[in-house]
Amino acid sequence: MAAPTQNLAVVVHRAGDLRLVREVLLRMHSVGICGSDVHYWQHGRIGDFVVKAPMVLGHEAAGTVVKVGAGVTHLQPGDRVAIEPGVPREIDEYCKVGRYNLSPSIFFCATPPDDGNLCRFYKHSASFCYKLPDNVTFEEGALIEPLSVGIHACRRAGVTLGSKVFVSGSGPIGLVNVIVAKMMGAAVVIVTDLSASRLQKAKEVGADNILQVKNETPQEVASKIKSLLGCMPDITVECTGVEACIQAGIYATRSGGTLVLVGLGPEMVTVPIVNAAVREVDIKGIFRYCNTWPMAIALLASKRINVKPLVTHRFPLEKALEAFETTKRGEGIKVMLKCDPSDHNP
Amino acid sequence: MAAPTQNLAVVVHRAGDLRLVREVLLRMHSVGICGSDVHYWQHGRIGDFVVKAPMVLGHEAAGTVVKVGAGVTHLQPGDRVAIEPGVPREIDEYCKVGRYNLSPSIFFCATPPDDGNLCRFYKHSASFCYKLPDNVTFEEGALIEPLSVGIHACRRAGVTLGSKVFVSGSGPIGLVNVIVAKMMGAAVVIVTDLSASRLQKAKEVGADNILQVKNETPQEVASKIKSLLGCMPDITVECTGVEACIQAGIYATRSGGTLVLVGLGPEMVTVPIVNAAVREVDIKGIFRYCNTWPMAIALLASKRINVKPLVTHRFPLEKALEAFETTKRGEGIKVMLKCDPSDHNP
Amino acid sequence: MAAPTQNLAVVVHRAGDLRLVREVLLRMHSVGICGSDVHYWQHGRIGDFVVKAPMVLGHEAAGTVVKVGAGVTHLQPGDRVAIEPGVPREIDEYCKVGRYNLSPSIFFCATPPDDGNLCRFYKHSASFCYKLPDNVTFEEGALIEPLSVGIHACRRAGVTLGSKVFVSGSGPIGLVNVIVAKMMGAAVVIVTDLSASRLQKAKEVGADNILQVKNETPQEVASKIKSLLGCMPDITVECTGVEACIQAGIYATRSGGTLVLVGLGPEMVTVPIVNAAVREVDIKGIFRYCNTWPMAIALLASKRINVKPLVTHRFPLEKALEAFETTKRGEGIKVMLKCDPSDHNP
Amino acid sequence: MAAPTQNLAVVVHRAGDLRLVREVLLRMHSVGICGSDVHYWQHGRIGDFVVKAPMVLGHEAAGTVVKVGAGVTHLQPGDRVAIEPGVPREIDEYCKVGRYNLSPSIFFCATPPDDGNLCRFYKHSASFCYKLPDNVTFEEGALIEPLSVGIHACRRAGVTLGSKVFVSGSGPIGLVNVIVAKMMGAAVVIVTDLSASRLQKAKEVGADNILQVKNETPQEVASKIKSLLGCMPDITVECTGVEACIQAGIYATRSGGTLVLVGLGPEMVTVPIVNAAVREVDIKGIFRYCNTWPMAIALLASKRINVKPLVTHRFPLEKALEAFETTKRGEGIKVMLKCDPSDHNP
Repeated sequence: MAAPTQNLAVVVHRAGDLRLVREVLLRMHSVGICGSDVHYWQHGRIGDFVVKAPMVLGHEAAGTVVKVGAGVTHLQPGDRVAIEPGVPREIDEYCKVGRYNLSPSIFFCATPPDDGNLCRFYKHSASFCYKLPDNVTFEEGALIEPLSVGIHACRRAGVTLGSKVFVSGSGPIGLVNVIVAKMMGAAVVIVTDLSASRLQKAKEVGADNILQVKNETPQEVASKIKSLLGCMPDITVECTGVEACIQAGIYATRSGGTLVLVGLGPEMVTVPIVNAAVREVDIKGIFRYCNTWPMAIALLASKRINVKPLVTHRFPLEKALEAFETTKRGEGIKVMLKCDPSDHNP
Repeated sequence: MAAPTQNLAVVVHRAGDLRLVREVLLRMHSVGICGSDVHYWQHGRIGDFVVKAPMVLGHEAAGTVVKVGAGVTHLQPGDRVAIEPGVPREIDEYCKVGRYNLSPSIFFCATPPDDGNLCRFYKHSASFCYKLPDNVTFEEGALIEPLSVGIHACRRAGVTLGSKVFVSGSGPIGLVNVIVAKMMGAAVVIVTDLSASRLQKAKEVGADNILQVKNETPQEVASKIKSLLGCMPDITVECTGVEACIQAGIYATRSGGTLVLVGLGPEMVTVPIVNAAVREVDIKGIFRYCNTWPMAIALLASKRINVKPLVTHRFPLEKALEAFETTKRGEGIKVMLKCDPSDHNP
Repeated sequence: MAAPTQNLAVVVHRAGDLRLVREVLLRMHSVGICGSDVHYWQHGRIGDFVVKAPMVLGHEAAGTVVKVGAGVTHLQPGDRVAIEPGVPREIDEYCKVGRYNLSPSIFFCATPPDDGNLCRFYKHSASFCYKLPDNVTFEEGALIEPLSVGIHACRRAGVTLGSKVFVSGSGPIGLVNVIVAKMMGAAVVIVTDLSASRLQKAKEVGADNILQVKNETPQEVASKIKSLLGCMPDITVECTGVEACIQAGIYATRSGGTLVLVGLGPEMVTVPIVNAAVREVDIKGIFRYCNTWPMAIALLASKRINVKPLVTHRFPLEKALEAFETTKRGEGIKVMLKCDPSDHNP
Repeated sequence: MAAPTQNLAVVVHRAGDLRLVREVLLRMHSVGICGSDVHYWQHGRIGDFVVKAPMVLGHEAAGTVVKVGAGVTHLQPGDRVAIEPGVPREIDEYCKVGRYNLSPSIFFCATPPDDGNLCRFYKHSASFCYKLPDNVTFEEGALIEPLSVGIHACRRAGVTLGSKVFVSGSGPIGLVNVIVAKMMGAAVVIVTDLSASRLQKAKEVGADNILQVKNETPQEVASKIKSLLGCMPDITVECTGVEACIQAGIYATRSGGTLVLVGLGPEMVTVPIVNAAVREVDIKGIFRYCNTWPMAIALLASKRINVKPLVTHRFPLEKALEAFETTKRGEGIKVMLKCDPSDHNP
């Protein structure tokens, strides 16, 4: 991926585009690196999505409006915005019912063949750019993307006041689920992981309880969770995709509760389906998210949530390769690329 | 209160019970035979429920009140009632939230060690006996039990006006799901089965479309369903418990839809979990039912639903063995035992 | 593309429009007259919506695609379609959550200043034109609009299997609520009106019970409803907007039930708010509808619903004035205008 | 079981009751005074509930188990418990669906003719006594009752992550709604009141914004709320019952939002019903609460919520009259009566 010196190639095409209708041109400021970015870089595909032509990466992003297209009334040049990367291309039945993330023809940054926004300048649908209040930084704006995964997962799980939540896996997505579950009123959140250092991070972002797992059977994990909580969790948010963890998630969840599958692993997994079915433990997956940016911004503006500790590394856009290799090595939590040469602040 | 000499032994014990508090004594009229009754008879257990002492079978039942206990105000001798077989023994957290079927200490007719009601006289909680209007027969009252499985399944599936529903399996439970889905406003119901004769019954109770399956792969079944409907079904109600059918249910269901597991098979099954998760196809099981009798009676009284064709055989209680063997052979749909020697009418 | 000389003026303007992007041009076939059309004709305004310039009326409509714009893939010339009159102009927060009817900038046929489709040729967003199956007539397609009011009302009311529903008012909107409530599985629907002949129509479309009211107090109406049903209704759909009827709706509805306000009357009304509040009777209004066309078409195609009796009069477009005067006089139920000179079939 | 001589008369009657079945006998510790207690004391009635015989007051209570009845397994002598004052007497249709607060035959402490628990010893259904963890005080346990009003109101309102909430009225019930809304993830809570000092308390318990109202019209109040928030609130929780405040609540709430009526005033009020209806602003009341104790205890145990500042006065049971007069004068927020002569700790 070779970017021209002043801007990435794709943007040159777009900058000459006269049809800036209902769109805005943005000067990018901060873009986080996601595991999927690294995966496309390393493997050129995720499932059926194959990179067949050069594609700009990046979809956790915030920037500044430099130009507004025709028909745009809620934004103006100078506005700082967070970018929701998925933009439905047509108002199909999924859009109409408020589940636009399931729209099969949706545009999505850095999912082939759609370009992402890890570049200097980027054009996006104005309806999916959300103005940031003065007290919310660009990096907080960029972090709304991973935060949205947690919001969508916890919302579909039905986390509410007093919920007892088990988060399986303490990587970046596990951590955002801890943060969001607590924000939604969960009374207790317990997190499992193989790594003590990752569990330590879970504690730092608000987990009430942690459990380092090794080679327990799924039933043993479920049993330990129950002992530690004093009861079975209402909700399990599974963030690893590992078969044994999905099984543990079913055994662990209270009758009538919900298991949400966030982590993705092998296509086919063997699960104790009768155990889940006769206890009415619902199994729900998530595909990205929808309707999360406005509530995330309201929360960030209220200062009731602190996502800043998630950013552990920063690199200028010119050092993107170094940044990607840092993420690939699994160092820290979130690596931010700073796309504006004149402003490397958070 | 003297029980007739022909009454089954268990009732003799109960007839001596002085504590008819909040309970009613019933003269049983019609009791349907369920697959689980046959299973207990043949195998002495279902999963963790083991018959360790003689147990009265039967839980699809209707009868007449002959005596009311202290504190019972909504019933009086002579009232004809349908019996909900599950009665919570304590007001625990599941009861309080309206999901009493999940209460771990629930009494349930003919689930060991709790006796059922396939007998001449039977005592039951008055709150779980529902008065039948004059225009609803005893047999219709007894059929509310299997009907309730369909109501609970379709309700948890979210069947609503215009739904396209795929019912996998055309046995008695598949058939009640066809009936209920149509009653809830489903626009199209398609049913699959191995047996052409069972599919014919589906047609008779209202299925819009049928598909006889043989040795197709799960993906092929899903593809045929889509071709026949012109679209993917919103909801799949899986009534076989067979692994390949569960897989087909996932592949067949529209993104954002729901797969309800009603049939139970092997404890562990291999499923395309990523396919379900990333398309937000929710997987929900059911355990019996709750809050179904009042709506079922209202429907039966309205004459908008016809369950009478489900009854294909009738035997007097004295010929119970013959009745059970008929069910075991898989003949007909529903076999009714007539418990009142003086009234064998429907 | 030359519009026929008989076409209404507005379409001439549009026919010159080169930007048929994501839109289709339609040859109109059948358009029903709504009370609001008559109101704009007689009074020039409804609330804050004032007719300041000539406006084409009509929003209950079906026609044939004659031309498809750029980006339209699901329709082609010759397709027969039903038209959803409300089209959001921007993807705002209401659209994103699936409640696009609340979008303040929505385009809506025949709500000033937006033109309707009571004309020969009409251009509309392709996403809001729904293909009619061969077994659904144009008039059935046009009737989806009033039917949608019933679907939205009954859905917000939570009508479900076994519901007991009280529909207050037996005009066209009351009647569609009767039809829809029954389709959603309501066990009993009772309808009130001042007019015996209107109540007779309610019977014809499926009402189980009717009550002619005169000068009863609201409490007396509630009491009579309860006597006739044998219980209080779970749901009341109020279609008159009259203060006393709204009061009766509150008194009549069962604790924990819902009163839906469909009819609109005076801006300020006096209601027994404590009675509603302490019995948790929810009061919900509706504004038009959303997400109703696909389910309505599925239902019409299934032949489980018969809306044809609602059409009592037909006039060619040339006799529009006569048609409007018929509606104004309150004759019949629904008056259809036939816009295609070469095809006056249903 | 001998009750101490100092115990209140009513308990003496009950102490002679041999049927401690599924019940526990409690030594009362802390009981808060509610406005309704004062109202019964002053007026002898609230609506249709009339005090016709001496009645023990008090329903915000916590105590210690001293004896357990037959069939009680989850509690034992010495357990500290919070008491849910409403206990359904029969498992009717409301209980079965999880809305037992609406059960017409429910027992409720200190609602005539049912005695409350402002006494030394008190007997209650074991299923409605909830064990307090060691880190939750008796007074926190007693405060679960007013907290439950907030939980039920905010839950019915649909408060969730990022909600913008307007609480009308800053008395004790307004304050618990502020606390609960914030706990459920509300981004912003704005409170109105006539009194600056009461608004100050709202600030102390977490309100983000306050507005002192005087003689503004309802529309003016709505307009000021919108100016202060920068948008209309999603949810309004009305805690005054005053007609003008209910009107302001309707005008203030965002289209598609919810107005919850918690405060009760005159039976008949005049409201802008068309404004609410066409903007789909739902109007919902609450009657007490259900299913709140377990989540409240989980929250209190998690130390994420601090209700201790609500207790502003404490009196020993012997000084009950003085305590009631303090409440009557409107001093402080919550007055606690200490019922255990040997332990006046919180």
